[in-house]
Amino acid sequence: MRTVMTRPTPLPPAPLTLGIVGFGKIARDQHVPAIAATGLFRLAAVVSPHGAIPEETGLGDVAVFRSQTEMLAALPGLDAVAICTPPAVRHPLTVEALRAGKHVLIEKPPAATLTELRLLLDAAEGAKRTLFAAWHSRFNAAVEETRRRLAGATVRNVAITWKEDVRRWHPGQDWIFAAGGFGVFDPGINALSILTEILPAPVVVRDAELRVPANRDTPIAATLRMEGAAGSAVGTVTAAFDFLQEGEQTWAIAIETDSGGLDLTHGGTRLSVDGVLVLAKPDAEYQGIYRRFHHLIADAAGDVDARPLQLVADACLVGRWRTTDAFHW
Amino acid sequence: MRTVMTRPTPLPPAPLTLGIVGFGKIARDQHVPAIAATGLFRLAAVVSPHGAIPEETGLGDVAVFRSQTEMLAALPGLDAVAICTPPAVRHPLTVEALRAGKHVLIEKPPAATLTELRLLLDAAEGAKRTLFAAWHSRFNAAVEETRRRLAGATVRNVAITWKEDVRRWHPGQDWIFAAGGFGVFDPGINALSILTEILPAPVVVRDAELRVPANRDTPIAATLRMEGAAGSAVGTVTAAFDFLQEGEQTWAIAIETDSGGLDLTHGGTRLSVDGVLVLAKPDAEYQGIYRRFHHLIADAAGDVDARPLQLVADACLVGRWRTTDAFHW
Repeated sequence: MRTVMTRPTPLPPAPLTLGIVGFGKIARDQHVPAIAATGLFRLAAVVSPHGAIPEETGLGDVAVFRSQTEMLAALPGLDAVAICTPPAVRHPLTVEALRAGKHVLIEKPPAATLTELRLLLDAAEGAKRTLFAAWHSRFNAAVEETRRRLAGATVRNVAITWKEDVRRWHPGQDWIFAAGGFGVFDPGINALSILTEILPAPVVVRDAELRVPANRDTPIAATLRMEGAAGSAVGTVTAAFDFLQEGEQTWAIAIETDSGGLDLTHGGTRLSVDGVLVLAKPDAEYQGIYRRFHHLIADAAGDVDARPLQLVADACLVGRWRTTDAFHW
Repeated sequence: MRTVMTRPTPLPPAPLTLGIVGFGKIARDQHVPAIAATGLFRLAAVVSPHGAIPEETGLGDVAVFRSQTEMLAALPGLDAVAICTPPAVRHPLTVEALRAGKHVLIEKPPAATLTELRLLLDAAEGAKRTLFAAWHSRFNAAVEETRRRLAGATVRNVAITWKEDVRRWHPGQDWIFAAGGFGVFDPGINALSILTEILPAPVVVRDAELRVPANRDTPIAATLRMEGAAGSAVGTVTAAFDFLQEGEQTWAIAIETDSGGLDLTHGGTRLSVDGVLVLAKPDAEYQGIYRRFHHLIADAAGDVDARPLQLVADACLVGRWRTTDAFHW
């Protein structure tokens, strides 16, 4: 389910040249500082449909293009591309960049459907280039520490609580409630990517309930019941996803093992063991993502993990769909 | 997406001994005659929860067990198992048989979720045994002939019409409308298994509408719009699935290519080219299945194609779910 390819190709000299495609908030707030901080890539170009980037980004001599096609034609020596667009246009851009021989970093979710994800893998293998589909929530020290502690444990049960206010985090973003927009699974898949990273065995969706507003296409709330694979050391995993949480926002995973309890909170940045905080590091996930991207390119490898998307698809497949109150911003 | 493994293991002498698990209508009507007709397997045992099989089946000296566990314990030399139970119990039985070192044949759909299908593949690889997940509708001469004719063609569009009366084919079977029962995708997945077999390129689900009765969990009707992968010789594919078709039942795939039209009708048993019937063979799909099962075992290979299930999951993931009239038998 997680495909890590390895193949021999020569490594270009560091720092590698990189183009960012889609220069919105995430690119400016996270990608640009992480690229600068790690020093493993040199930002050579930016694609912005508006054809200009604000002066305050301080990118100086970085070339700006209106489309990826223009950038690829103008800079044939470019090593890598980071696709930072909304999900809907990500697939054709990723295929185009791979076919042009670039290493490609894409954000989560890696595709709208599992078939498209499979086609991305095929394109990367065909082009013999690195495709890294980053599940960014995995790049926290507390997640890695949790994985390490669960490696030999018996996990009795896990309770995921992922409740946030869609009006606060995605104000007016109708695409999130349109077909293919994932709805509450857009944040929920972050919890599932952490879950599949930390557990010592795979889980299977046994039951799900998905609540879709009468005037929308995707769920605004969902509950899932999963179970560890037969004979494994993982029991029951429940997940409660809610997009209408006012007041305190909750992104937490409570784990009960045969030797005590672990609480991974604040979106996977803090770990408490038996009620005592053992790890709380500030979020530096994008630096981790760029270090891993560089490492994968150096190893001539790729990393595309389908499991979180597969769990969402499985929940949609076996779930009970219910209509709930209409949603207005 | 289609995993065909090959590995070296010694081939047991033919005919191979086989146990049938679940001795309902499909086992009696199709499996038993196909096993007899091909002569590649010898039916050695039957698992029937009732502990007896009707005399009129004429199976004479075939051993009867109440559970697969009993059969595996009593007949350690058994080569292979055919799982013919309803979908809900198929997964643990398949894993048990593989872990006991048996080659396993399962019917469609191979699993309730994609994660479970992945776990079956892992179990087969771990046990170094053949797992054959048969998409039985592919085993018609007209399907193979269509695949051959489309291999070099440009496929402009495909229209699938799969309309049947659930009251006639699944009378009173509430499981089909329960979560995980697939609803109209239970027959619809047959069309998708033919589609993925005959087309020269993969298709991606772009849009779907799923209609669920107010008192049930799974769709009673669905429409899908798919597209060939970017740059491939396949255009648009539409599918109309309906479980409330009275009168004439329709299982048809109409294909328009740059060099004419092909019509695959009657569930994939008849092929017409430009309106002229070119192939109409009586249905002998189960003989084909057992020949292929034997062939795979002889080659120490397996055949598990996730694509049809993946298309259903993709449709559920990106589809618009709508509530429709309550359904009563």
